[in-house]
Amino acid sequence: MKDQTVIPGLDGVIATETDVSYLDVEQEEIVIKGYDLIELSEKITYIELAHLLFEGTLPNKEEEAKFESALKKEYALPDEFLSIYNNLPKDMNAMDALRTGISALGSFDPLLEDRSTSANREKSLRLLAKIPNIVANSYHKLTGATPVEPREDLPFSSNFLYMITGKVPTALEAEIFDQSLMVYSEHEMPNSTFTARVIASTQADIYGAYTGAVASLKGSLHGGANEAVMYLLLEGKTVDGLETLLFEKLKNKERIMGFGHRVYMKKMDPRATLMKKALKRLAKDRGREDLVEMCQRGEDILREEKGLYPNLDYYAAPVYYLLNIPIPLYTPVFFAARAVGLGAHVIEQHDNNRLYRPRVKYTGPRNLHP
Amino acid sequence: MKDQTVIPGLDGVIATETDVSYLDVEQEEIVIKGYDLIELSEKITYIELAHLLFEGTLPNKEEEAKFESALKKEYALPDEFLSIYNNLPKDMNAMDALRTGISALGSFDPLLEDRSTSANREKSLRLLAKIPNIVANSYHKLTGATPVEPREDLPFSSNFLYMITGKVPTALEAEIFDQSLMVYSEHEMPNSTFTARVIASTQADIYGAYTGAVASLKGSLHGGANEAVMYLLLEGKTVDGLETLLFEKLKNKERIMGFGHRVYMKKMDPRATLMKKALKRLAKDRGREDLVEMCQRGEDILREEKGLYPNLDYYAAPVYYLLNIPIPLYTPVFFAARAVGLGAHVIEQHDNNRLYRPRVKYTGPRNLHP
Repeated sequence: MKDQTVIPGLDGVIATETDVSYLDVEQEEIVIKGYDLIELSEKITYIELAHLLFEGTLPNKEEEAKFESALKKEYALPDEFLSIYNNLPKDMNAMDALRTGISALGSFDPLLEDRSTSANREKSLRLLAKIPNIVANSYHKLTGATPVEPREDLPFSSNFLYMITGKVPTALEAEIFDQSLMVYSEHEMPNSTFTARVIASTQADIYGAYTGAVASLKGSLHGGANEAVMYLLLEGKTVDGLETLLFEKLKNKERIMGFGHRVYMKKMDPRATLMKKALKRLAKDRGREDLVEMCQRGEDILREEKGLYPNLDYYAAPVYYLLNIPIPLYTPVFFAARAVGLGAHVIEQHDNNRLYRPRVKYTGPRNLHP
Repeated sequence: MKDQTVIPGLDGVIATETDVSYLDVEQEEIVIKGYDLIELSEKITYIELAHLLFEGTLPNKEEEAKFESALKKEYALPDEFLSIYNNLPKDMNAMDALRTGISALGSFDPLLEDRSTSANREKSLRLLAKIPNIVANSYHKLTGATPVEPREDLPFSSNFLYMITGKVPTALEAEIFDQSLMVYSEHEMPNSTFTARVIASTQADIYGAYTGAVASLKGSLHGGANEAVMYLLLEGKTVDGLETLLFEKLKNKERIMGFGHRVYMKKMDPRATLMKKALKRLAKDRGREDLVEMCQRGEDILREEKGLYPNLDYYAAPVYYLLNIPIPLYTPVFFAARAVGLGAHVIEQHDNNRLYRPRVKYTGPRNLHP
């Protein structure tokens, strides 16, 4: 019998080669196609990053304009598409609405069953263009609000935030929202990206891969964390209230969301540091410095009591709150941002495929007979 | 830096402990909860097997009746549920229809966000009951036929086949269809089951896990194979026609579906042997012995020329053809059968969870700056 060592959670297993991204824990760098994600997030826009991930290079001005124009042409959903939500429960989870929407959308794509690099790039672009529309408007449809048509005259991120809130964002809001999409865009091989690659490895289509990734990201141990953080902050209400709440949870050994990360271990997530800066700017603009103070107190308590550092979700949550994004959409927005990374991974998987098929260690009985 | 050995496809990696099932390659046995799958397939029914997988034991007569009765109460889909297909493309892939349907169904389940063993068992039962209804009636709806209401007076498998064909099956048809569901029911850790467990490991819900598994099973390297086999047989038309076709494909080094299996290697899939027997009985009943002869010739050619043996899909395809199942439903039926295995795996994953999160070997550039 071969080596039967179980590797729970595939911890430390190298599941694939990739040139998409890498978490360099030693140098504390999130590498995206050779660039540092944090540097990118401070210097370029989400659209340039999308070009980098799908096409492999940062675009020059002309390429960027062409890419953004192609993207805007794909904003619209098929006619009557949103009617699939007509007979679904009004209180359905927004991630379930998104999962169902992406799954349904695939059938409208004429390139659905084409696995070539060029077809996968085209489909990745279409998904990137349409997912914000599904996120915002499935929510409006289910909550009984009027869907908000995309506006091609707005930059990509502004249009996304506009479709969610119904208001054209200020320059500061647009900038910070764009930056939040950047830091959520790609992160090596988290569970949802791994799910997408595992699915794609059967030669299943890219819409199926994204659908599975939504299913994964919904989980409370993954994307669901940013919503949990906001509910925690709202439950705490004040700096002192949060302190009381956190000590209570620590005493009861409850899991506190928004802290720690399997890969970063004891370091602070550099994306969280960036969102913390963004939160300070936005909070000042809104006169909500109390929110910054609350977050700082929470950060201090978890570091002192548990040696844990905040991750991205911890600071993205209050940023989204101040951007007036409804809390049930935090995880769908995270997913929409991650669409650029997922596209790059599915393209790479189909271009150089090996079916994922691990084995198990069987621990049940043997030799039973009916 | 740690060991950077890439394990393509996670080949040979032991991804989890399980007491659900095990492919014992050395003893050539498919072990399901301690029993031999082939022996089970010859001695019990699919419903008893479902009880074994969800509850852990084979049912006595009373338990079986109770289980089947509970199942039948869950046959119906929510009112207006099938209307989600009204505005979707009529020619959409049946697996995409199923994927969208299962994703949408989750929102109707009051236990959706409950991860307890008992809730997961209840949801597994509901999914087992409703998936055949979605498979059959999304197809009818999309092809413009009238949906076929489930009939509680028929045994589970008979009702499933009845909903597909609109005709109550004969005893022979019902027996063989039930057996085909048994052999497709559970098979350790194929890509779709792995997908379901990876998704469930974020504490995502069971509907999301199944949705991802449908996405995976659609791929041509996985469940899609049974449909490809039938198109091959139909293209061959006759024994000699198939021979010519196969030699042509071998010459052109084309992949021939329905042969070989990563885990069985050079052995014949024992499930294929069982379906071969079933095919012989059904073909005799229908006066279609030519189909048996064709399959045998194909089997002989691939063994002699490539040393490859047929897998389950190779013999399930002509069986489904003679049962008058439309070819686009072969993979959805495979999925419906696998629902019992998936339920057991998701229950086990949630009961003893560790988030799947592997690493990568980064092969791209470094130290670029925007």
